[in-house]
Amino acid sequence: VLVATSHPGNIGAAARAMKTMGLGDLVLVAPKSFPDSEATARASGADDLLAAARVAPDLPAAIADCSYVVGASARPRSGRWPITDPRRAAETMIRRLGKEKAAIVFGPEQSGLTNDDLARCHALVQIPTAPGYGSLNLAMAVQVLCYELRVAALDQAAAGEAHESATGNPSVAAEIRDAPPATAAEIEGLQAQLEDLLTSSGFLRADHPRELKRKLRRLFMRAALDRNEINILRGALASLDPARTRGR
Amino acid sequence: VLVATSHPGNIGAAARAMKTMGLGDLVLVAPKSFPDSEATARASGADDLLAAARVAPDLPAAIADCSYVVGASARPRSGRWPITDPRRAAETMIRRLGKEKAAIVFGPEQSGLTNDDLARCHALVQIPTAPGYGSLNLAMAVQVLCYELRVAALDQAAAGEAHESATGNPSVAAEIRDAPPATAAEIEGLQAQLEDLLTSSGFLRADHPRELKRKLRRLFMRAALDRNEINILRGALASLDPARTRGR
Repeated sequence: VLVATSHPGNIGAAARAMKTMGLGDLVLVAPKSFPDSEATARASGADDLLAAARVAPDLPAAIADCSYVVGASARPRSGRWPITDPRRAAETMIRRLGKEKAAIVFGPEQSGLTNDDLARCHALVQIPTAPGYGSLNLAMAVQVLCYELRVAALDQAAAGEAHESATGNPSVAAEIRDAPPATAAEIEGLQAQLEDLLTSSGFLRADHPRELKRKLRRLFMRAALDRNEINILRGALASLDPARTRGR
Repeated sequence: VLVATSHPGNIGAAARAMKTMGLGDLVLVAPKSFPDSEATARASGADDLLAAARVAPDLPAAIADCSYVVGASARPRSGRWPITDPRRAAETMIRRLGKEKAAIVFGPEQSGLTNDDLARCHALVQIPTAPGYGSLNLAMAVQVLCYELRVAALDQAAAGEAHESATGNPSVAAEIRDAPPATAAEIEGLQAQLEDLLTSSGFLRADHPRELKRKLRRLFMRAALDRNEINILRGALASLDPARTRGR
């Protein structure tokens, strides 16, 4: 919910920010100018959200069907408001959604939400800006909060799946692989070829501490080589082998 | 680090996004237009960051002193890149800062980072956008990642205080390392030596697809080489150089 937004461009940018994070339900309370070509221009493909946006005369009308309302606030306010951060606010909202409707309310660019508006919020959310420079653009604040909502929704979905499957799901960051991971035997082959070559070249000596070989091996392990990379490395090493060159 | 940004307004908005989150070190690689009045207008009080911004001719020059580089990527890429999300990326960066320098790299608005640029990154970070609408504005992406950096920094500070008050020790789990992590410049040196050698050996040819070089580079990035390992590898390569052997 955007309250009394002054710059139509910010409405468009907020719609875009929402849509990138999978949100669709934009409500405008008494916007200064809407619809507006500047809003459409900044929406950049999220104009469907603008077309579907509901315009409400005041905040109570905008949030009438919501049972959890969070007010975005740039600065500390006196008064008895529970203050939360974006992550906790998003987690709470996502937990409550499904059965309930929830809203985040953003005030006008210059002045922020009035005390009357804030009084209609269950909690205030503050984005932790740097001391001395809290000048977060309205659409940027929308982006940060929508991002947290999306992360919370994905986390909840993942937790649900993990609960259903009852087998530990891999929580590590995904990696795209072109080729199957190298087997231990393939790594041994690479390591042996490298050690032979570096022994002929004089880099590794018979009396050499084994630590140097271990360091090379550790490095390959850490790189988690795949089969394709093993082949590239072995081809490269073969090209460097003087024995092979002499044989040609 | 913003690479080849087309719209000066995005540079200004990115500077503002950084400053709100307490960040100050902006590097511009070959910006289309900078300085520019549109950048200054959108910076809205963060013009000190613009004034202090460093302009670099290419990405290697921009990240030369960094030992951890994350590339922002809007879409999945094939290839062996570890892919992380903004929260994990920020936690890793904040953990490593202090002793080291780290960078987040953003590509041009339309095309994103090239494969050559990505090959210079230790990991890719993807903001989890909605399926079918990943159109996140550049400055918005900067805002989300800077926000996560700030949250991670505040979390670390809070955890550090809690932990130190209990034990007097810093709370961060240290990684066991023999040597400081390699900087981007050190990796460039290794890569150049390897490419030279493999070109003389005939493994890499002038007409060779660049993909092979990128694969070698990516492998080094993924291995997260330290300085000692760079020295070992460069010594090994030198021992394999026929030019050097002939000279003896």
